[in-house]
Amino acid sequence: MTNRRMVLARRPSGMVDETTTRLEDGPVPEAGPGEALIAVRFLSIDPTIRTWMDDAPGYLPPIELGDTVRGGGVGEVVRSNSDRYAVGDLVVGMTGWQDYVIADEGSAAMQVIPPGIDPPLVLSVLGVTGMTAYFGMIDVGRVTEGDTVVVSGAAGATGCVAGQIARIRGADKVVGIAGTPQKCAWIVDELGFDAAVNYRSDDVAKSLRALCPGGIDLYYDNVGGEILDICLAQMALRGRIVMCGAISVYNETTRPPGPRNIFNLIVKRARMEGFLVLDYLDRFPEAQIEMVGWLAEGRVKHAEHIVDGLEHAPEALNLLFTGGNTGKVIVKL
Amino acid sequence: MTNRRMVLARRPSGMVDETTTRLEDGPVPEAGPGEALIAVRFLSIDPTIRTWMDDAPGYLPPIELGDTVRGGGVGEVVRSNSDRYAVGDLVVGMTGWQDYVIADEGSAAMQVIPPGIDPPLVLSVLGVTGMTAYFGMIDVGRVTEGDTVVVSGAAGATGCVAGQIARIRGADKVVGIAGTPQKCAWIVDELGFDAAVNYRSDDVAKSLRALCPGGIDLYYDNVGGEILDICLAQMALRGRIVMCGAISVYNETTRPPGPRNIFNLIVKRARMEGFLVLDYLDRFPEAQIEMVGWLAEGRVKHAEHIVDGLEHAPEALNLLFTGGNTGKVIVKL
Repeated sequence: MTNRRMVLARRPSGMVDETTTRLEDGPVPEAGPGEALIAVRFLSIDPTIRTWMDDAPGYLPPIELGDTVRGGGVGEVVRSNSDRYAVGDLVVGMTGWQDYVIADEGSAAMQVIPPGIDPPLVLSVLGVTGMTAYFGMIDVGRVTEGDTVVVSGAAGATGCVAGQIARIRGADKVVGIAGTPQKCAWIVDELGFDAAVNYRSDDVAKSLRALCPGGIDLYYDNVGGEILDICLAQMALRGRIVMCGAISVYNETTRPPGPRNIFNLIVKRARMEGFLVLDYLDRFPEAQIEMVGWLAEGRVKHAEHIVDGLEHAPEALNLLFTGGNTGKVIVKL
Repeated sequence: MTNRRMVLARRPSGMVDETTTRLEDGPVPEAGPGEALIAVRFLSIDPTIRTWMDDAPGYLPPIELGDTVRGGGVGEVVRSNSDRYAVGDLVVGMTGWQDYVIADEGSAAMQVIPPGIDPPLVLSVLGVTGMTAYFGMIDVGRVTEGDTVVVSGAAGATGCVAGQIARIRGADKVVGIAGTPQKCAWIVDELGFDAAVNYRSDDVAKSLRALCPGGIDLYYDNVGGEILDICLAQMALRGRIVMCGAISVYNETTRPPGPRNIFNLIVKRARMEGFLVLDYLDRFPEAQIEMVGWLAEGRVKHAEHIVDGLEHAPEALNLLFTGGNTGKVIVKL
């Protein structure tokens, strides 16, 4: 029995490539007292992983060269020296990109998943991704009845849920920005967005002006860059910009120019606020209960893009930046 | 008797120059029923006037070519057909850059100043400038005991009051950014700022890192541009940026690049919010009462930079952008 670990071999300049990571074989770790051995089954592929690969200060330290790539996942308990973990239990936590990991009963890092929940859901709508959409839209964005809402990265894992939550909370209009006709059709026809803008083929500024003639009350930003700048210029009075992520810039080798229209925040008395879902960990249960209800009622729909094999995790990460996915990217081990 | 009006002759490209405005002689307006004739005594010179000269959308329409330059001021009632205005009363309101203006008792635009108040004070600490500092620091910035506060344009009319309010409200450290050794000495020695950074001679990023080792909790931004970007990079967790103005960019002929460090708002879960003091008009009395108390106790100090003569109003406006003033710029007619 060996443990394959995908380690960071070289810090990427731009997109992750074949020199960025390296698969290493090592011994399967031993579960000590109060610990369990977890066989990793699914990896959650998130844009933030790319930011951890840079040698730059962030909300978590960079991944060290030679260390296993950091990331969330779902695993199965295969050995246990702890009453907290029974063999066969599924757990969710920071597994890292590897076959096996140790869970420690004294830490909150690895949580048992209640039976009956489809494991990928725990990584998408019921996990960090869905929670990001929930707290970003409701807590930071304070979405309100009648709002005109624009979501970028709208066919991505977080964006698609964020738009649906805006709809549920009474937004008057929900516009999604995505990168292919198929994605645009999916968010409108399947998820109930009012309209979609294809940023690769449409004039985004012109389309948004036509779709949001009274301006944008709430812009949920997953991409940063030029689309953020366009939305800044079209904010309504007392508009809010929820800064969730900036996937358009994570792979830039030089720091791109900032938004030129920032001064419009003054003219429109608008607010721009960043957040990290990690700050909401203690409120996950309330949000998960609400989300389970919405899923049961069919009011929140979701999609998973499954990639097979640990060896393909780096390519799976790139999908987030090339727009190759619809919904949540998950690597199945 | 003639009324001299300073009209907008040509939209400026960059700084206001001799072609931007033109002095025109015309008849003194007649006060109709319910109206009073006001002889303008003092003009409030504010950065926002420069933004109204551009043909660009803003929170107020641009000044039309040929129209009197818009601006606040203090005047004296010289004729009256209204019980609201007695001859000899001083009034404050949007006088425009001219010798005479009509006050209409049916409008809130021109308010009688209570006796005993020095007229320039009504344009500085007790007027729009002081109110901007007050609501920006307290309401938008939510300055809190223990905060590390940085104020740019700190020797300007708004900045100098904003920093003093932060001190009064219990900020742990108040750092001002200004452009001459004299201004830096004034805000520290006279106004009680803890430290000053001279943006013309100091390395601002390095100085702020040394002065604010735990990061900036509240940045009160009067200047935009590069200093905003530097502060963005140095925000503390849950920091707040109050966007009050952007004097570094109002005279730019092309829209300058935005702040590259905007992504740090996510990492630091920070908030950036614009505001306009006009939204707080109904709360001016509460703030003015508090400010009068602080003035009486000597806890808020102020300075006025008086320029003589309507014909010099355009040069007075330029002082705000060249840094030629300390405190409030007022034109005395």
